[in-house]
Amino acid sequence: MKFCSECGYSVSLRIPPDDDRQRHVCDDCHHIHYENPRVIVGVLPTYGSKVLLCKRAIEPRKGFWTIPAGFLENGESTADGASRETWEEARAKVGECSLYCVFDLPYINQVYMFFRAEMSSDEFSAGPESLDVALYEEQDIPWSELAFPVVTSSLKYYYQDRQSGVFPTRNEVMLFKRPRNG
Amino acid sequence: MKFCSECGYSVSLRIPPDDDRQRHVCDDCHHIHYENPRVIVGVLPTYGSKVLLCKRAIEPRKGFWTIPAGFLENGESTADGASRETWEEARAKVGECSLYCVFDLPYINQVYMFFRAEMSSDEFSAGPESLDVALYEEQDIPWSELAFPVVTSSLKYYYQDRQSGVFPTRNEVMLFKRPRNG
Repeated sequence: MKFCSECGYSVSLRIPPDDDRQRHVCDDCHHIHYENPRVIVGVLPTYGSKVLLCKRAIEPRKGFWTIPAGFLENGESTADGASRETWEEARAKVGECSLYCVFDLPYINQVYMFFRAEMSSDEFSAGPESLDVALYEEQDIPWSELAFPVVTSSLKYYYQDRQSGVFPTRNEVMLFKRPRNG
Repeated sequence: MKFCSECGYSVSLRIPPDDDRQRHVCDDCHHIHYENPRVIVGVLPTYGSKVLLCKRAIEPRKGFWTIPAGFLENGESTADGASRETWEEARAKVGECSLYCVFDLPYINQVYMFFRAEMSSDEFSAGPESLDVALYEEQDIPWSELAFPVVTSSLKYYYQDRQSGVFPTRNEVMLFKRPRNG
């Protein structure tokens, strides 16, 4: 950030009164510009014993498999945003979304909120950000070709929890940047 | 937003290529300025059978009771942010934080993430944003003087779940603006 979005004047990094960290502050109108983490919402879509994965058509990690997810938009709930992303990336409709995995990625200022949801039918297809979309049984999951650690962790939790049929909301801080197996 | 924070030129609301909603786009350098919901993190601090509440010293809802909470900052995990707010507003230290209540407030572009955590001691005091801080037994909770619906809901969930000793993560979309009982 170099200029004030309110008045167009230059900004400087300084600690405002009653604050304890540096912010971009306008040198003219003194508006304080706060920058905060963003929320990524997604769905682990299931269809019976299968899960739906998308092969990424865009960077980062183009060609690797992920679950449908993207930035939460203003004006929508996290579950609505997760359903929207599932439609945009996999052209799949899902039923009720249950909050399942919450991941903190503080090194990139992101919070991930993934839901579990059963697909309304077995209809799906690749949206513009996907090269391919496919339903996978557990033994066929392409573990070495998963796009992100949050995807690997979510699937591991899912197959672990499926044994008991109880899916508590998981909460984990991620401190690494690349899949350990990728 | 009136000016581009990258180059200082004017911005216009338009739908960028490959997008489906209006963004502020720079009329000169064409930088797209995304605006996304913000995350509020907080703690429901417990000390034995009591919970810690803070009387707000600032608007909105000055003079009403809340739990320590505030905006998640870049570079911190949600649990770390929640602990930090507990220190800033109530000068209380807490142990491990367990994710408890996740509230969507889409009408104000906010996601709340509240944790349960046991206080490390019974030491606390009012931080600069609090007029008072106090430990409450269930029968003494000032229900009609709670600051926000998310606080009322969190406390209701807590006393409900305490009967079984099981505290599943709760996820709720809030569509109203003021406490129903406030």
